[in-house]
Amino acid sequence: MSNRQIVLDRLPQGDRLAPEHFVLNAGHRPTAGEGEVLLKTRYISLDAANRAWMQGATYRAALGAGQVMAGGGLAEVVESHVPHLKVGDLVFADTGWQEYAALPGKPLKALPSLKPETHLLSVYGVAGLTAYFGLLECGQPKAGETVVVSAAAGSVGSVVGQIAKLKGCRVVGIAGGAEKGQWLVDELGFDAAVDYKSPEFKRQLRAAVPEGIDVYFDNTGGDIFEACLFAMKNHGRIACCGAVSQYDGAAPPHGPRGVPGLIVTKRLNLRGFVVMDFAEQNDEALADLQAWVAAGQIKVQEDIIDGLENLPAALIGLLAGENRGKRMVRV
Amino acid sequence: MSNRQIVLDRLPQGDRLAPEHFVLNAGHRPTAGEGEVLLKTRYISLDAANRAWMQGATYRAALGAGQVMAGGGLAEVVESHVPHLKVGDLVFADTGWQEYAALPGKPLKALPSLKPETHLLSVYGVAGLTAYFGLLECGQPKAGETVVVSAAAGSVGSVVGQIAKLKGCRVVGIAGGAEKGQWLVDELGFDAAVDYKSPEFKRQLRAAVPEGIDVYFDNTGGDIFEACLFAMKNHGRIACCGAVSQYDGAAPPHGPRGVPGLIVTKRLNLRGFVVMDFAEQNDEALADLQAWVAAGQIKVQEDIIDGLENLPAALIGLLAGENRGKRMVRV
Repeated sequence: MSNRQIVLDRLPQGDRLAPEHFVLNAGHRPTAGEGEVLLKTRYISLDAANRAWMQGATYRAALGAGQVMAGGGLAEVVESHVPHLKVGDLVFADTGWQEYAALPGKPLKALPSLKPETHLLSVYGVAGLTAYFGLLECGQPKAGETVVVSAAAGSVGSVVGQIAKLKGCRVVGIAGGAEKGQWLVDELGFDAAVDYKSPEFKRQLRAAVPEGIDVYFDNTGGDIFEACLFAMKNHGRIACCGAVSQYDGAAPPHGPRGVPGLIVTKRLNLRGFVVMDFAEQNDEALADLQAWVAAGQIKVQEDIIDGLENLPAALIGLLAGENRGKRMVRV
Repeated sequence: MSNRQIVLDRLPQGDRLAPEHFVLNAGHRPTAGEGEVLLKTRYISLDAANRAWMQGATYRAALGAGQVMAGGGLAEVVESHVPHLKVGDLVFADTGWQEYAALPGKPLKALPSLKPETHLLSVYGVAGLTAYFGLLECGQPKAGETVVVSAAAGSVGSVVGQIAKLKGCRVVGIAGGAEKGQWLVDELGFDAAVDYKSPEFKRQLRAAVPEGIDVYFDNTGGDIFEACLFAMKNHGRIACCGAVSQYDGAAPPHGPRGVPGLIVTKRLNLRGFVVMDFAEQNDEALADLQAWVAAGQIKVQEDIIDGLENLPAALIGLLAGENRGKRMVRV
């Protein structure tokens, strides 16, 4: 019984991720042992973090060459040796980039049945929860404040901006290119958008936040982080979610200017977080997100690509910023 | 009636602060108008922040060339036009580097009478309160945790370490030179000290905190900040108090590596603060500090230099790290 897989054939060594780092492998379908479930992958999530895992240990062990590429997916239980999961249940699991995975059943839980099921991987998945907890717990936005989010057209940023709007904030999105910016304003209701690829980026940012930034939700790090740091108001908060600008290539030789000087003089609070840290509050968050989606206050944007074999190109494209909303691959 | 003053004759322009930036001026003693008090300066506080104010606007306006050098001092009321202050009262005020200053009386309050009165400028002044609020409010240390403080032999750092010890923490001080380190361990009860001037600094720091840092109290910024950032434990906290390594010279072209990547993966919390932000809690803090000093749990180190004319050299020396504990000039 076959099991098509994408193997991380070799790790990028300071170079950018490229198709040749991966290889398509015809593996064997695993069997589920005691306490395990056999999962059939339906959709695999593409995330900037996939690339970060190649750089070294983070909140998970570093990836190694020769292993099936790691990644989370929406999967169906096709065989179960645990009482709480039955055949046909959908779960979110660390399946890796493959058609089938046998995993311990204990940490998994059956997802609610809802349509479209892809929302389980976008707004009700890691992306939506990351936006929710990062903005509300770390950012603590208050009505009338100015919220800026980078990678604003991505899976997390697009939800951050919409939650901030429904909390009564003025919202500015930073994204690459005029088209994405137009979409953020016209379709998602952002108050303004700024193009980080423009040579006028810093000036445009300052013009978009004339009184400064109260809450900055950072998905990018690097120059965008630095520009926002300099534009923060006193007592502002920065939710540090990721640093996609830093993942694909050699480790940056320097960090942003203004650290820690501006943190002191502006009395800023910077908080790094990973969505798992808030797992105990997931139910509450999902109830809010579902209510907002049902009310049309959050529009869900998904970018679905067909075919397991397209996973490498899908990730490489995501790192280059070609997606709008949550990118995933239908297996 | 004369009033000797030190004037900031010209601002350093990317160069290090030097005696020729200052000039001793024989000014006129001011008169106190309606709502004002005339103050006679007894001790002037030397602080790294004095230098930071020359770089641009911070939590106060930037200093300008030709003005009396700004600085806080312990001063005696010699004439009062406000009901709440009487002749002979001691106050802490933004007197500047001069013998006499006429200032609005409203923001000033009479200090308690205690011996030695210099403690009003050290452990019961800005330095002690900065240590107290920065460590306890921003650092949130718990018994058994590892606390690291930079500029550990300075006015703030020496108090930070001692408060952390009495809260049951393991305390490592970073200071320049073996002698200061020995003093921190032998006299102030630090568990270990690390010499940032040593070529082995990073290795020694890692050896001193084998399990990593829970709370880092940063007075320096720069390379020391970076080294500590890399040594933080998950969920660690960084109290950003100052960046003395960055003040005396050209603005650094880059910030520390690992920002914001390590903030995310380690889920760190960085909080910048200025002591005035906690003014409402001053009474409580002073009661604690007085009790600890009385019980011998905090040893107060002061470095008192005589003569207004020695203020420039005293500040230049402080920026070079020559002081131990709170440096002040007796006018």
